[in-house]
Amino acid sequence: MQKNRRQFLQLASAGAVGATLASCAGMPTAPEPKQRTFVFSHGAFYGAWAFQPTIEQLVARGHRAVALDLPGHGLNARFPSSYFQRPLDNAKFGTEPSPSASITLEDNVKAVVKTIDAAMKGGSGPVVLVGHSMSGVIISAVAEKHPEKIAKLVYLTAFLPKSGVPAIAYIQSPENKGDKVGAVIKADPAKVGAIRVDQNSTDPTYVRANKDAFAGELDDAAWRAVSNLTVPDAPIQPFVTPVTLTVEKWGRVPRAYIQCNWDNAIRPALQEKMIDDADAATPNNKTQVVALDASHSGAFLSDPKGLAAALEEVAG
Amino acid sequence: MQKNRRQFLQLASAGAVGATLASCAGMPTAPEPKQRTFVFSHGAFYGAWAFQPTIEQLVARGHRAVALDLPGHGLNARFPSSYFQRPLDNAKFGTEPSPSASITLEDNVKAVVKTIDAAMKGGSGPVVLVGHSMSGVIISAVAEKHPEKIAKLVYLTAFLPKSGVPAIAYIQSPENKGDKVGAVIKADPAKVGAIRVDQNSTDPTYVRANKDAFAGELDDAAWRAVSNLTVPDAPIQPFVTPVTLTVEKWGRVPRAYIQCNWDNAIRPALQEKMIDDADAATPNNKTQVVALDASHSGAFLSDPKGLAAALEEVAG
Repeated sequence: MQKNRRQFLQLASAGAVGATLASCAGMPTAPEPKQRTFVFSHGAFYGAWAFQPTIEQLVARGHRAVALDLPGHGLNARFPSSYFQRPLDNAKFGTEPSPSASITLEDNVKAVVKTIDAAMKGGSGPVVLVGHSMSGVIISAVAEKHPEKIAKLVYLTAFLPKSGVPAIAYIQSPENKGDKVGAVIKADPAKVGAIRVDQNSTDPTYVRANKDAFAGELDDAAWRAVSNLTVPDAPIQPFVTPVTLTVEKWGRVPRAYIQCNWDNAIRPALQEKMIDDADAATPNNKTQVVALDASHSGAFLSDPKGLAAALEEVAG
Repeated sequence: MQKNRRQFLQLASAGAVGATLASCAGMPTAPEPKQRTFVFSHGAFYGAWAFQPTIEQLVARGHRAVALDLPGHGLNARFPSSYFQRPLDNAKFGTEPSPSASITLEDNVKAVVKTIDAAMKGGSGPVVLVGHSMSGVIISAVAEKHPEKIAKLVYLTAFLPKSGVPAIAYIQSPENKGDKVGAVIKADPAKVGAIRVDQNSTDPTYVRANKDAFAGELDDAAWRAVSNLTVPDAPIQPFVTPVTLTVEKWGRVPRAYIQCNWDNAIRPALQEKMIDDADAATPNNKTQVVALDASHSGAFLSDPKGLAAALEEVAG
């Protein structure tokens, strides 16, 4: 199956090149991609800011695109008081309850629906809903609630859960062997109510481990710019709350998965397993798959042009 | 003149309410605003992230909108090595050369033009170019270079410089009395090559002063979310480089100014003076003015809906 998926990607790339050549030489052109509205829901620790370069690429391709800040992230961020106190009191940082602990999966669903509704109010048809990482859970729940608002679900190296299985079960599954996120967690999520990472660390070993978990291909300076924008606390509830997904609602929305081959947070074998399980659940609505050579966050941080091309391809 | 401008705002608000009532009651409606493409260029220390809520509002109104990260900001941020070392070594932070010191006004102009070109490549006509704060200098230079790419220049409580006058001259002018930014600068800009602020400070007095300079109406938690996204160093060159602006190029682009009445960074009297000077320079192309009750950054941080309405109003 991996091989077929790679072939799909090669075909997609060849198609893009072909369209360019054709438009230069008067040859018959491939049909123009439809104008789409992309809504981006980021992963844990990130924010709308993560998708600025990708949005600019999509805008250049004639699409509309908007990203949102989930609760507890970006402009909605809240911080444990110990986070900015330096040197870090590891004992306090490891036990202080998260101000984001009360944020539920449903809160996240509402935030995404609000942005979709804004786009549709502005004249968009059903949107291409892109979820990165833990937002895979959120966009699945959104699709179960409002399948009619979504033209396509795009799981960008994201959790693509089976009905009733919370993200945490996937994180701890054998298919996620090689995960590097666990090594940078600084507090017991069950105790503080969040997955907690020290984004402002100055310990070179820790900073390197944090980068390797999320975006190993970035240089250190680019990674520092990313980590400065992140939050330390990702609320735990969206990771432990199971979502009920039905064939009739979530299962009827066309979906794509953008695999990232170098991912150390959601490992490639886990990505494969979730795709296989989803396809088994909806054999008449199989996952369209594109694979990119990128880390967990590398697609949008270091190859927004490639990601935009892949997104346009799967948006149809 | 202040009074006339306030009347303008009141008329604009009345118009918006009128349109809403009319659409409910079958009364004759005001003409629908044209679909526009808004390009947002942020101020010192900020990034594309600042405009997410405003962009969502504009998208809901049927427009396209895209923000960019200027060089040295957002995903392009670079940091003095002393910034993340805590407790802060004030002597080192006060003297360490900025990695952003080499960023020129021209680098900023190129970044903005790149985003405008992306939008136009994607099918947009000339854009509504919104510059906040020091981006007023940048968008003026962009307009001088490419007046044909801009449908309207919108100075969002921004520098609106006279030809040949650098932003620093306005900062130091008598009309900027009451400025609160000076009090939070932690290094000599001439020595380090940047205006440097300690965004991660934990000193409550300093944090309060920083908030009061930029967005006094925010509560402390919301301000912390903002300051976590900011950078410490704003490159100095865009502040000290004069821009040549001609009546024939910059001066022929229609422009608007969104005054912010509570601004402690570019004081209301300075806003007025720059508008008056611009109108004297181009008597046949006067500045359209809207005034909002907001701090320097409050319009987009705490009233994105009001800002979006004002932007739509001035975009025409």
